Amino acid sequence: MSMAKLKVAQLQTKVYAEKKQTIEMLSSYLETLSPENVDLITLPEMFACPYQTSNFPIYAEREGDGLWQTCSELAKQHRVYLSAGSMPEVDEAGKVFNTAYVFDREGKQIAKHRKAHLFDINIQDGQHFKESDTLASGNHVTVFDTEFCKMGICICYDFRFPEIARLMVTKGAKIILVPAAFNMTTGPAHWELMFRSRAVDNQAYTLGTAPARDSSSEYISWGHSIAVGPWGNVIGELEEGEGYMIHELDLDVVDQVRAQLPLLHHRRTDMYVLEEVRK
Amino acid sequence: MSMAKLKVAQLQTKVYAEKKQTIEMLSSYLETLSPENVDLITLPEMFACPYQTSNFPIYAEREGDGLWQTCSELAKQHRVYLSAGSMPEVDEAGKVFNTAYVFDREGKQIAKHRKAHLFDINIQDGQHFKESDTLASGNHVTVFDTEFCKMGICICYDFRFPEIARLMVTKGAKIILVPAAFNMTTGPAHWELMFRSRAVDNQAYTLGTAPARDSSSEYISWGHSIAVGPWGNVIGELEEGEGYMIHELDLDVVDQVRAQLPLLHHRRTDMYVLEEVRK
Repeated sequence: MSMAKLKVAQLQTKVYAEKKQTIEMLSSYLETLSPENVDLITLPEMFACPYQTSNFPIYAEREGDGLWQTCSELAKQHRVYLSAGSMPEVDEAGKVFNTAYVFDREGKQIAKHRKAHLFDINIQDGQHFKESDTLASGNHVTVFDTEFCKMGICICYDFRFPEIARLMVTKGAKIILVPAAFNMTTGPAHWELMFRSRAVDNQAYTLGTAPARDSSSEYISWGHSIAVGPWGNVIGELEEGEGYMIHELDLDVVDQVRAQLPLLHHRRTDMYVLEEVRK
Repeated sequence: MSMAKLKVAQLQTKVYAEKKQTIEMLSSYLETLSPENVDLITLPEMFACPYQTSNFPIYAEREGDGLWQTCSELAKQHRVYLSAGSMPEVDEAGKVFNTAYVFDREGKQIAKHRKAHLFDINIQDGQHFKESDTLASGNHVTVFDTEFCKMGICICYDFRFPEIARLMVTKGAKIILVPAAFNMTTGPAHWELMFRSRAVDNQAYTLGTAPARDSSSEYISWGHSIAVGPWGNVIGELEEGEGYMIHELDLDVVDQVRAQLPLLHHRRTDMYVLEEVRK
């Protein structure tokens, strides 16, 4: 039996240069949230590493090391699913990835997604950034199971590609988690549009969790963490500052929308094929 | 050499029960527009057939017959590309399709798209409709060439499926034409969102052309014909009434957006494959 409703807290946290401070902040947030009995907590992209390409190798840890361990322990301590945003991960060969881990209520890692689309952008009079200077890319679409439903997870720029959300949903996802950090160019232009349209096209909940804005940082986050329902309705959206929001997601609504406007059923899979390439 | 700019007129016309009236109206519009020197004129979905499933077989004509002929002649007479919305087409076997024809400045048919996704919807306390009661479906993604650029064309519900716009663009389209008729349920919820998100995801112009609203009709059109640029900016949007709008589309903007935020280049085609199934 799967539960039909879950309570989610999205944390739009500050990014500190010191991991110790990040961990103190997280512990404090989870204590504060404890009486709320949330089922799932989501954190932002690179929540413990100021978003600069030069920082990724410096802050990177192996899977299972310090920050991973802390997140696992916090999930277990609070008996909550924890989507631990993303953090720089270094593998045995020394390659660095932008990696999202998800832990269950026992602190067990149940999902790991390495950002597959690296953010290399060069907008005239706007944002410049080149993740591929220091990052390697993942190669997989990530879907995992929970007591509520299947969920997909990808990171920020991955979600720009409609193929990713579509593949998650054809694999059974009803909720899509996206740790992300849009900027002051792309944020006002595309952030809400992307979360709403992916939700409508795929008739799923979409949750984007971003860092709070710090105007003194090199890459300035748009903030605006967002939760959208399967009909494209914005359930909640923060502004730019630090904070959190809690929502209850009713999975019956996913089923209702899919029954009334059967987009997923009407896909012409005899006419076009979208498939993940297995590696 | 391809021209970098084109002038488009989108006609949000009334739907008449009599084809004769429709033809008179079209002739009159094209006369009025003549001094504007537009390059492309677009018409709504089912612009000459009140949108009811029972009407489609009654109004259906063979390709090349009366209404097709009129549209071809009007295009030739005014030396304009004409996207003749869509009309019911009956084939030699008696099957009826929702078909979009496009004519060039010589009146030659340069594209034909049969609606591939039939609109069968049943929203609680909202819109009910079942196209498949009387229509058969097409099986192809449609892209055609012009002196300006390649363009894609699909019809209304086809555009709900992100696969279609994506396949058009991977085939070279820089402008996507969508004769369409959203309704009073889906219009306010999803119309603008869909045209904006397809434009952003595919870095192409998207043009939706709808019939004017007639509150006494069985299926009430949302209207709101729309033109969106490749950064997701709404270039123009009509309200519900009869009318038209003219815009100049600068194709250099497509190239600029694609260069600055190289989404199409960043697609991980080694990780997922989207392909049309050839029939």
